[in-house]
Amino acid sequence: MSQISQEVPIDLGERSYRIAIGGGLLADAATYGDLPRASTALIVSNTTVAPLYASALRSALSGRYGQIHEIHLPDGEEHKNWQTLQSIFDVLLQQGCDRKTVLFALGGGVVGDMTGFAAACYMRGVPFVQVPTTLLAQVDSSVGGKTGINHPLGKNMVGAFYQPERVICDLDVLSTLPKREFSAGLAEVIKYGPIADMDFFDWLERHMDDLMALDRSALTHAVRRSCEIKAAVVGQDERESGLRAILNFGHTFGHAIEAGMGYGVWLHGEGVGAGMVMAAELSRRLGLVDEAFVSRLTSLIRRAGLSTVGPVLDTTDNAGRYLQLMRLDKKSEAGEIRFVLIDGPGRAVSRAAPDGIVREVIDACCR
Amino acid sequence: MSQISQEVPIDLGERSYRIAIGGGLLADAATYGDLPRASTALIVSNTTVAPLYASALRSALSGRYGQIHEIHLPDGEEHKNWQTLQSIFDVLLQQGCDRKTVLFALGGGVVGDMTGFAAACYMRGVPFVQVPTTLLAQVDSSVGGKTGINHPLGKNMVGAFYQPERVICDLDVLSTLPKREFSAGLAEVIKYGPIADMDFFDWLERHMDDLMALDRSALTHAVRRSCEIKAAVVGQDERESGLRAILNFGHTFGHAIEAGMGYGVWLHGEGVGAGMVMAAELSRRLGLVDEAFVSRLTSLIRRAGLSTVGPVLDTTDNAGRYLQLMRLDKKSEAGEIRFVLIDGPGRAVSRAAPDGIVREVIDACCR
Repeated sequence: MSQISQEVPIDLGERSYRIAIGGGLLADAATYGDLPRASTALIVSNTTVAPLYASALRSALSGRYGQIHEIHLPDGEEHKNWQTLQSIFDVLLQQGCDRKTVLFALGGGVVGDMTGFAAACYMRGVPFVQVPTTLLAQVDSSVGGKTGINHPLGKNMVGAFYQPERVICDLDVLSTLPKREFSAGLAEVIKYGPIADMDFFDWLERHMDDLMALDRSALTHAVRRSCEIKAAVVGQDERESGLRAILNFGHTFGHAIEAGMGYGVWLHGEGVGAGMVMAAELSRRLGLVDEAFVSRLTSLIRRAGLSTVGPVLDTTDNAGRYLQLMRLDKKSEAGEIRFVLIDGPGRAVSRAAPDGIVREVIDACCR
Repeated sequence: MSQISQEVPIDLGERSYRIAIGGGLLADAATYGDLPRASTALIVSNTTVAPLYASALRSALSGRYGQIHEIHLPDGEEHKNWQTLQSIFDVLLQQGCDRKTVLFALGGGVVGDMTGFAAACYMRGVPFVQVPTTLLAQVDSSVGGKTGINHPLGKNMVGAFYQPERVICDLDVLSTLPKREFSAGLAEVIKYGPIADMDFFDWLERHMDDLMALDRSALTHAVRRSCEIKAAVVGQDERESGLRAILNFGHTFGHAIEAGMGYGVWLHGEGVGAGMVMAAELSRRLGLVDEAFVSRLTSLIRRAGLSTVGPVLDTTDNAGRYLQLMRLDKKSEAGEIRFVLIDGPGRAVSRAAPDGIVREVIDACCR
C-alpha cells in the first residue's frame, strides 16, 4: 500500500496515546502490534458495521489474543442506553473476561461512547481501543476520552472521562459510510476552523469538493488536522473545566435540536451544523464577528451537504422551547445557559447571553 | 465537646483529601466549611439510616447549599444494583442538578459505593463526600476511592476508581449500629494487623474488649490507625495494579462465602473474618507462618464476635464450589486465583496456590 499512515500523539501524561490515520490500517495485524497483551479481547460493534468489518478486525487480532469475543449492538442513538451497556457487561462476565481484557470499539460514536464507558466501568477499568468507522467518530468522538450513555432525561448524562489505548482511523472505511453521515461528520471538521484555526478554515473552503468526493489526500489532511486541534485542546483541559468547552461550538443549539426532534431524527452532526450557524449569528448580534464571517461559515456548511437552518420545535413558542431544552444541557450552571461564541474568527469563548437576543437568533435561524 | 477530631490525609496528588475522625462531626456545620460551593446538594442515604441522621446532616449543610435534595435508597447489599443507581440519576436530573452539585453519601458501604459511583458518572463526574455510618465503611470502604455496583454475575463488577472530597467519620453514629454489623466492621480493622502492622495487632489484642464496649478512645485509635494504613497502601497504588491487593486479605475466600450463600446472608465483614482464618491457614500450609500466628489471629477474630469457620456451600463438593466461585473473582487472571497470604506476621503477598492445598484448607476450615 502506497498510503503512509500518520500519527497524532495525544499528550495526557500517563494516559497519553496515539491516533493512527491512514488506509488499510484496520485489517493489518501490524496496527495492533504494541497494544497490551491479554488472553481475551472483545470486539464491540453494531449490526450495521459488524458485517462489513468485524471479520477483518478479528483476523488482524487473532495472533495476539487467545480468545476474541464479539458483541453486535443494535444500531442507533436510541440504543445508547443502560440496557445496551448492560449487554456488554453480560458478555464480559459470561465469557469470564478478566481485568486485562482489551475492548475494541468498532463503529461510530455510539459504539465508541458505550464501549469506552463499558471499559471504564468493567472491573473499574480495562483497556480499550477505538476503531472509528464514521468520519464523525474519527475527527471528534473517538478523541478526547469522553464516554457515556444517554438517560431518558438527557443525552450523555451518565458517563466517564476515560482514555483509549489507541485510536485507529482507517480512511478506507469511509467509502461504505452513507453520504448523510459523512456530511454530519464534516460539521465537526468545519467546527475546528472558527474556534481555533482559520488557515484550516481557508483550506476547507478550497477543498470541500475534494472531501465530498472522498479524495484520499484531502481526507488525510482533514482528519489529521481535526485530531491535532482537538488533541491540543484536550491536552490542556482533559476534564472540561474550561478551555475544552470551545469544542462545543454549535453544540448548545445542536443538542436542543437533537433532543427537541427526538434523538436520531436529526444526526448529531446535522444539529451541530445548523447550531454553528445559530451560534455564529449570536456572536454577530453580540458584536463579536461580522456578517461576512457568518456568511462564509454558512456557505461552507451548506457545501458540506448540511442544513443551515434549525427546525421549528414548537409552533407556539419555538424560541421558548429551544431555551427550555438548552437550560437542561449539562453545560448549564444553576440554570444559566453557556454558549460557545466566536470571538473573532479563529477564537472561541464560552459565555452566557441575554435571553432576548438568543430568542431573536432562534427566530431568525429556524424554519 | 471535649472530643478533639483528628485528621488523616490521603495523599493522591490532585485527588488528595482528608479523613476527619471524631465525635459530633456529622451535625456540626463547621465540618463542611471548606467543601466546594454549589447551588445544590444531594444527600443519598437509605431507609434505615436516613430517619436517624438525615435531618441533622441537612441542618448542618443548610447554610452552604441553596437547595438540598434527599434520596433514601432501599437498605441492603441486594439493592446495590443498576436499578437503585438509576434512581439516583433520576433525582439528579429531575431536580436539574448541574455538574457542580455535591453528593453526600450518608450510610454504610453500599450507600457509599453507589453514591460514589453515581458521582463518578453523573455528567462524567461531580464532587462527593463520604459520611460513613458503619464501622466497616469508616475503616475500609469509604477510604480509597473504590465505587461501584454489583452485577447479577458478580459483586462489584461495574464501578470506578473515584475519590471523595472528604470522608467524615463521626464515631457517635456507631452507637446506633447493630452489634452484628459492628463485629463485621472489626474484621476489616483486624485485617490491617497481619498485612502491615503487628504493633497494631498487639494493640487490638489488648483493647478488643474496649472496642466491643464502644470505648471512645479505643475507637478513635482503631479507626485512625486503620485509615492510616489503608491510606498508605492506597497512596502507593491508587488503581490496584499491585500492592493494593494486600488489602484483600481474607477477601478471596470471603467473597466466595458471600456469593455462595447469596448476597446479604453473610455480611461482607463476616465473610472476611472467616476468610482471614482460611487465608492464614493457607499461608501456614505453604510454610509462610506458624501455627501460633494462625491461633492468635483466629482468637482475635472470635473475640470480635465473628465466626472463625466458613459455611458449607455444597454438601457434595464444598471445596470445588469454593474454587469455582473464587475463579470468578475479578482478581483472578486467566482463571488463576490470586490469594493474599501472610508472608510472616505483618507482611502480605499476593500469589497463586496449588488447588490441592486450597482444597485441604477449605475442608479444614468449613463446617
